[in-house]
Amino acid sequence: MRAKLINQDGERTYALIFEAGDEVIAGLTQFAREHGITASRFSAIGAFSDVVLGYFDWERKDYARIRVAEQVEVLSLNGDIALDGDEPKVHAHVVIGKRDATAHGGHLLEAHVRPTLEVVLIDSPAYLCRRYDKSSGLALIRIE
Amino acid sequence: MRAKLINQDGERTYALIFEAGDEVIAGLTQFAREHGITASRFSAIGAFSDVVLGYFDWERKDYARIRVAEQVEVLSLNGDIALDGDEPKVHAHVVIGKRDATAHGGHLLEAHVRPTLEVVLIDSPAYLCRRYDKSSGLALIRIE
Amino acid sequence: MRAKLINQDGERTYALIFEAGDEVIAGLTQFAREHGITASRFSAIGAFSDVVLGYFDWERKDYARIRVAEQVEVLSLNGDIALDGDEPKVHAHVVIGKRDATAHGGHLLEAHVRPTLEVVLIDSPAYLCRRYDKSSGLALIRIE
Repeated sequence: MRAKLINQDGERTYALIFEAGDEVIAGLTQFAREHGITASRFSAIGAFSDVVLGYFDWERKDYARIRVAEQVEVLSLNGDIALDGDEPKVHAHVVIGKRDATAHGGHLLEAHVRPTLEVVLIDSPAYLCRRYDKSSGLALIRIE
Repeated sequence: MRAKLINQDGERTYALIFEAGDEVIAGLTQFAREHGITASRFSAIGAFSDVVLGYFDWERKDYARIRVAEQVEVLSLNGDIALDGDEPKVHAHVVIGKRDATAHGGHLLEAHVRPTLEVVLIDSPAYLCRRYDKSSGLALIRIE
Repeated sequence: MRAKLINQDGERTYALIFEAGDEVIAGLTQFAREHGITASRFSAIGAFSDVVLGYFDWERKDYARIRVAEQVEVLSLNGDIALDGDEPKVHAHVVIGKRDATAHGGHLLEAHVRPTLEVVLIDSPAYLCRRYDKSSGLALIRIE
């Protein structure tokens, strides 16, 4: 495990409110580009009208896609934004609750909000960078 | 998606420790009133002796209530406090774990703690306000 | 419910990146010892190759152990570090997602990372202390 001090002061906290129909990954990525975000974390609650979850299949080294095409509560949505090359890359995992209160979740590939998603995003002045990892085939945050 | 910078400094962080028998929404609401909270977020872990979950039924525009009357782990409890008129309004979503480790969850309507709930609450000097939303019938945070 | 202001400024934020094979509780505990942590909270996403979940059995006053020996997504991992006597004690709850996107979780007893776990840990200059609680048999955070 490697550690990097990413802030002692100078963090900025944003409330981001998504509205019905907004797509989450696209919205966060656009916000990150416009605000020059290089190391950020976020957390959210709200609801989706549909969502595509990912499960990383270790044998195939690829994400299985699981579509949930129904109204669900967003019980937990946590993630970070780091640089992948010059571009900010959003990484988010989600837990959703169905009508019967069972919880499901995965890597967040795509989701549409309905009626709201309340995100708190904290932007640090530091840099976190992703690098290609041969053993998984993924771009992982690497601390030198 | 709309954004509001809610802090660059001046945040206050509280540890709130609930004890056996305490009700969560009432406790957070009372704390918010006593401390004049206008824009806050929180996160918690712990355990409940019983909890009432909500699922927002989009057709009926109302919450279905699902009561879980058993000892459960609180795996994730995230939420925010914003103003609804002059009053602080707590909005929280929870994931609980049962004896067989299955996860369930929803909008948190009511919960009793046993033996503890460890909350970290971060209070920002900014204001976030809820406004009636016609399409959902809910009071949603609105950023002008 | 009791409250303690644990920070108005002076917090330090760390990114901790775990690699394949790292055990989480041991890694966090070692980090806390090396950095003299006395009141901290953390949040993480990533994936495990195997994990042992705990469910606190209120009748037996002990944790039931549930081993999940498969690759899972870490959908939410929240916790805190407080002092138990002179030693930092890690307390974490986790939600995991299986291949079929069902969510499971519990108190985190042990977990091995694969390929990554991205932790944000915020260290406060305050002190939080655990004390033996007779009714549960657990060491709970106590605010005087």
